[in-house]
Amino acid sequence: MNTERREPAYLLTEKQVADKSEIARRFLDTRERLNAHVEKADNLLVKRFYHIDHNAYLEGPIPAKYKELMGLVASACLRCDDCINYHMIQSFRLGAVRAEQEEALNVALVVGGSIVTPHLRRAYELLVELYG
Amino acid sequence: MNTERREPAYLLTEKQVADKSEIARRFLDTRERLNAHVEKADNLLVKRFYHIDHNAYLEGPIPAKYKELMGLVASACLRCDDCINYHMIQSFRLGAVRAEQEEALNVALVVGGSIVTPHLRRAYELLVELYG
Amino acid sequence: MNTERREPAYLLTEKQVADKSEIARRFLDTRERLNAHVEKADNLLVKRFYHIDHNAYLEGPIPAKYKELMGLVASACLRCDDCINYHMIQSFRLGAVRAEQEEALNVALVVGGSIVTPHLRRAYELLVELYG
Amino acid sequence: MNTERREPAYLLTEKQVADKSEIARRFLDTRERLNAHVEKADNLLVKRFYHIDHNAYLEGPIPAKYKELMGLVASACLRCDDCINYHMIQSFRLGAVRAEQEEALNVALVVGGSIVTPHLRRAYELLVELYG
Amino acid sequence: MNTERREPAYLLTEKQVADKSEIARRFLDTRERLNAHVEKADNLLVKRFYHIDHNAYLEGPIPAKYKELMGLVASACLRCDDCINYHMIQSFRLGAVRAEQEEALNVALVVGGSIVTPHLRRAYELLVELYG
Amino acid sequence: MNTERREPAYLLTEKQVADKSEIARRFLDTRERLNAHVEKADNLLVKRFYHIDHNAYLEGPIPAKYKELMGLVASACLRCDDCINYHMIQSFRLGAVRAEQEEALNVALVVGGSIVTPHLRRAYELLVELYG
Repeated sequence: MNTERREPAYLLTEKQVADKSEIARRFLDTRERLNAHVEKADNLLVKRFYHIDHNAYLEGPIPAKYKELMGLVASACLRCDDCINYHMIQSFRLGAVRAEQEEALNVALVVGGSIVTPHLRRAYELLVELYG
Repeated sequence: MNTERREPAYLLTEKQVADKSEIARRFLDTRERLNAHVEKADNLLVKRFYHIDHNAYLEGPIPAKYKELMGLVASACLRCDDCINYHMIQSFRLGAVRAEQEEALNVALVVGGSIVTPHLRRAYELLVELYG
Repeated sequence: MNTERREPAYLLTEKQVADKSEIARRFLDTRERLNAHVEKADNLLVKRFYHIDHNAYLEGPIPAKYKELMGLVASACLRCDDCINYHMIQSFRLGAVRAEQEEALNVALVVGGSIVTPHLRRAYELLVELYG
Repeated sequence: MNTERREPAYLLTEKQVADKSEIARRFLDTRERLNAHVEKADNLLVKRFYHIDHNAYLEGPIPAKYKELMGLVASACLRCDDCINYHMIQSFRLGAVRAEQEEALNVALVVGGSIVTPHLRRAYELLVELYG
Repeated sequence: MNTERREPAYLLTEKQVADKSEIARRFLDTRERLNAHVEKADNLLVKRFYHIDHNAYLEGPIPAKYKELMGLVASACLRCDDCINYHMIQSFRLGAVRAEQEEALNVALVVGGSIVTPHLRRAYELLVELYG
Repeated sequence: MNTERREPAYLLTEKQVADKSEIARRFLDTRERLNAHVEKADNLLVKRFYHIDHNAYLEGPIPAKYKELMGLVASACLRCDDCINYHMIQSFRLGAVRAEQEEALNVALVVGGSIVTPHLRRAYELLVELYG
């Protein structure tokens, strides 16, 4: 079952998000700096994994926005701040409104429990920066 | 930010899903039998938790179908077969097509890694029973 | 800070618990059968680990009953049915009443989230067998 | 089984703990600053979850002190520094002595393994600040 | 850094292991039966993930036997019985002796803690069947 | 099955690694500073656990280098930066080449999924400092 997939149409560039939010800017800068080491290493398996990872969030039977919000739920349940930041930024770039991000975080909070709370608090700080 | 929430309109009852799938039937029967013990205990905190859990998947800014698929992603990442069964059945009852369930499982596989694979295999068996 | 530790005074033997509860009996029998393989292997590191594991729950600054209930919370948060069974049986043998077991499970449910629920349901079945 | 629950009688305020420990002060300040964002958002499900979370640690069949120590065990097993800090502070405010905190951390170390060690090390730094 | 990789030279087929061990036989049969559903679905992302997964354990700078034992450590730490069975069988097929499998399990036990114990017990049962 | 074990022959001291890598130096310094608190507490169970932990990585049926790389795989799967740093430094001290460290990280990435990626990125920064 392999319907055609395509790159989503972002409403904003990463640069535009970084200009809006200091948390986003720091995250994106660090990620870019560290990824340079990974890219330079040119490890074949890592490159293939990154490729699959990219493909999992393309437009498809489920719209890209909802898949990024799914990535947010997974990231919050598994309690990874970097991953939470990434998927919140991606969801924002794809037009997710704040209420949608909050609902995704709610699913993660209920599934994952109070151990998610410290990450939720930090996520709300990013929500404030992104949505004003 | 509390937009109104309401019960989703299920296209199928749990009973109808159980008639279609033996895996679903066994899961739903066991869950009902065990929940009877929990209900009889009448523990206030558990009841409140169940209530919140129920509310997290209502219709809202994100359609209920996508929230059930988010629950599926979280369940598969956290590797809980019972939870996977539950959210696949709920997504099915809300009209999710097979390609949508596969995409949600793909997000979980990529985020959670090969440790998710045994659960993915069992999830595909349920997909076969649900979608023929 | 190493206050003296001693074996707790159990109110019941494992055998007596097994006579009361079929779930406990099956768990204890399987555990005994499998542990025979581990003991026969006589692996030094495993033996030392088992020894430390045993010592962590002795009477000490915190009474053994509460440490077994802590083991229950940890087991339920980490979602291990065998470990949940073990610590519920141990707590029962040390005189924990049902309300105490439920409260420990509540802490685990709130900290660990709805992913704990399937284990909670099975734990309540054991509660019924232990406390009638 | 819902015995009456009531707020525990703290021996110290959060402020008093913050005056005693720099780690506690920084944690409590950050938590308060970030929680302001969560409170302002006024998300109904989050508020209900916070309410349940609060109730799980009230005085009840298990004394509040032991439930906070259970929260500490769960937090250390699940490896969340913020949660560890929180429950160590709460246990301290309820009169837990250092030996009790160490025993709770021991249960977490044995259940959770060496992956808990980096958190244990940081927890011992807080122990030093709290108990001198 | 992509040194050439090649298929490892197995000393035994899966069939030969299944003839030796009932646990292995049941695991391999179930895995084959369920994988048939996954293969039939022909989901592009899943196929790519399976491909990467396969490549991660090929002969390379680290001999395949040690990478399978690494897979065993990861599986035991993350507490997945199916994954433990799989990597124990693979290690066995590549000539790992029993002492090597026990050492890998020791690393997992120490890193992962007593929550690994129930899986360790079951792993030792498979060791008995494989190594007599 | 307890073959003799002995301390591995390190090619480099921790000090030499710290001189080569700023990340290693900061990690080792912090670890030493915090471990001083743990040692001063002189908790018997913690000391015994540290002892077992040490023994799990000695030379034995599996060479120490591969056991440290197994510790790296476990640490990356369980997503603990301190543990990753520790086992990368230990592997380096035992002569592991960069390609071996990358392969161990590949196993962890495939088993653990994209949630491992942020840790992988930071691990590659340490690889650069260690191997130039």
